[in-house]
Amino acid sequence: MSLNKNKLIVQKYGGSSISTVERIESVAGRIASYRKKGFRLVVILSAMGNTTDNLISLAKKINPYPQERELDMLISTGEQISISLLAMALHKRNIDAVSFTGPQIGILADKSHTKAKIVSINTRRLKKSLSDNKVVVVAGFQGRTFDNEIVTLGRGGSDLTAVAIASVLKAGSCEIYTDVDGIYTADPRIVKKAKKLDCISFEEMLELASLGAKVIQARAVEVAKKYNIPLHLRSSFSSKGGTVIMRKKRQLEDAVIEGITLNEDEIKITICNVPDKPGMAAGIFKKLSSEKVNVDMIVQNVSHERITDISFTVGSSDARKALQVTRDMAKRVKAKDVLPDKDIAKVSIVGVGMKTHAGVAETMFKALAQAKINIEMISTSEICISCVVKQKQGKSAVRNLHSAFKLEKR
Amino acid sequence: MSLNKNKLIVQKYGGSSISTVERIESVAGRIASYRKKGFRLVVILSAMGNTTDNLISLAKKINPYPQERELDMLISTGEQISISLLAMALHKRNIDAVSFTGPQIGILADKSHTKAKIVSINTRRLKKSLSDNKVVVVAGFQGRTFDNEIVTLGRGGSDLTAVAIASVLKAGSCEIYTDVDGIYTADPRIVKKAKKLDCISFEEMLELASLGAKVIQARAVEVAKKYNIPLHLRSSFSSKGGTVIMRKKRQLEDAVIEGITLNEDEIKITICNVPDKPGMAAGIFKKLSSEKVNVDMIVQNVSHERITDISFTVGSSDARKALQVTRDMAKRVKAKDVLPDKDIAKVSIVGVGMKTHAGVAETMFKALAQAKINIEMISTSEICISCVVKQKQGKSAVRNLHSAFKLEKR
Repeated sequence: MSLNKNKLIVQKYGGSSISTVERIESVAGRIASYRKKGFRLVVILSAMGNTTDNLISLAKKINPYPQERELDMLISTGEQISISLLAMALHKRNIDAVSFTGPQIGILADKSHTKAKIVSINTRRLKKSLSDNKVVVVAGFQGRTFDNEIVTLGRGGSDLTAVAIASVLKAGSCEIYTDVDGIYTADPRIVKKAKKLDCISFEEMLELASLGAKVIQARAVEVAKKYNIPLHLRSSFSSKGGTVIMRKKRQLEDAVIEGITLNEDEIKITICNVPDKPGMAAGIFKKLSSEKVNVDMIVQNVSHERITDISFTVGSSDARKALQVTRDMAKRVKAKDVLPDKDIAKVSIVGVGMKTHAGVAETMFKALAQAKINIEMISTSEICISCVVKQKQGKSAVRNLHSAFKLEKR
Repeated sequence: MSLNKNKLIVQKYGGSSISTVERIESVAGRIASYRKKGFRLVVILSAMGNTTDNLISLAKKINPYPQERELDMLISTGEQISISLLAMALHKRNIDAVSFTGPQIGILADKSHTKAKIVSINTRRLKKSLSDNKVVVVAGFQGRTFDNEIVTLGRGGSDLTAVAIASVLKAGSCEIYTDVDGIYTADPRIVKKAKKLDCISFEEMLELASLGAKVIQARAVEVAKKYNIPLHLRSSFSSKGGTVIMRKKRQLEDAVIEGITLNEDEIKITICNVPDKPGMAAGIFKKLSSEKVNVDMIVQNVSHERITDISFTVGSSDARKALQVTRDMAKRVKAKDVLPDKDIAKVSIVGVGMKTHAGVAETMFKALAQAKINIEMISTSEICISCVVKQKQGKSAVRNLHSAFKLEKR
């Protein structure tokens, strides 16, 4: 039996969509309605509600710095619980279904515990179960190494599982269900007039995701872009369409800016009085990279008397490791001091339109200045400009930029 | 590096021994003290506290009759959580430790979901980790099939995992930690004067375990007997010695009876007016067996006019399936009726001494008669006599038998 790819849908349900028995039943109901329409489905699940966070808290009660291998062993149980429960709920509706863990279904990953990368997916079992006309329920967020170790794929890793499976199965569609109904021009909790976008390009979504729009994992969008898999981001609590993330051609009437994001979950680290010799910055960031710390923004000021300051930002979860590595390196290069600063927020504007429109940065800086918001760091890419400001001014910055770029009129 | 088998201990900790963070820390402390003495350890864990029962309740909220494959997928997460937490607790004490699930460590089992039998254990990873001088923490109760399906080994399956691993590694000792400090002549909650036994034979323990003494799984004792592995049953809450289960030679001064058990977790099923033709009983019990229902006692009365009644008992968990199978069979053989009776208790006396002592049965029946307890069914083996009585008289029967056999003077 050959697979009709247009009839195959990959769906991913996030933790909030399956946080209770009732919500699991409701997801089973949605799957049943797709079955009635003749679709075949692979369903990827996260852990129920806050299970992953609760397991991590439990671990930290026992050991404040749990080994990452054991942490993966622990937290991978969350998805295993959800998949078995959804399979049971589907059985009750007389839908043939079978659940598989990541290791079982052949998701081979590298050895980077807690943030592993998928190496390959063996589709034998997936295809066999689909051709047996079963709904295949797969644990997201996890895989196994060549040595049969259990690894997890990092925060939001279930999105990656869904996209990777949609890609290897050449699925007709990949739906990402969550508790929000799409991508907005800004967080509606911050900007009341924020508008939902029907459609957004991979590039814009990538910037938004990496900037802290937590609805979908950035790596998942990267993979979707690479294999050109449109992602339909929507709410499991409504039947309304959400936002489609897809390959988009530039059109004349495109907006300059698609959205504004706020990330309050980074810290800034400044290394003071670094001797300004070639290779100094490279040495520091090479060491951070080898310790798997993801550095976001980097700013180095003009040097005075062959001495300079280097500032960079990292996610809060990497803060401890980043500080330790930076202090070691600072000592080695005889820098004066290392200063962490938690009181920051990063505000970013994103849009492919800014490639061809001059004055976007100017509008941004002017709007912030008028609101008396001081800019501490700036970084730019082709379709994004980010500014670091004081944390308490972050939300106000978003609101001011939203009206400066007239996003409420989209 | 070769393994010195005398220095290798297998320890198994039950759910109550690791039910809280504090208790997991305490188990880590005990393991640390063994490490100081130079022992190498393989530690088998159950799920924390009531985790398994809680997961089963959760499943039944979603589907009252969950598929056993999915149930195994669900409940096997319990042990995976405990092993990772204990490994973290050991790491905090600077003890090198590594956790493995049953499938990971190479416990190959057959396909009987929820009550699988171990087929083989691949010791490569176990031996490698031991020779790396690590404490190996293994999830009890679970294994994988040849098809890489997750299976569990039935209630108390962690005991079986421990004994099987002790056997393949030829460990010097196998300690089973639980919340009681050994085997008593009767349940101390029922008989205040019950005495702890320092030592008991495999055969006696087998009868006690199969009769409902829940401190250790019967199948685990069978395997220990087969490979002659002494089991030290003891409490994780004290440092006192417990009861050693081992190969025992009959000695002149051996007691006639070692213990008395009570099982209130069976139901009696009576098939009324079965045509008394050859092969009738065989047909019924063959069908029950093929449905994996474990039948305990069977009684068939003398027939009148080529018609007879057949009664048997099964564990409560098999009751639904047993009743269904029996009703189907009763219809087919044109029996009159099938009557279930939940209101029963099984009281049993056990001791290798009864092989050579006459009058044991007489003493038992007389003691029950004097206490005005009616016997509904009787079955005997070489070292055990069981009587079914009304459930409300079960505890009183145990107390009366305990004093009739003078077990308080042991």
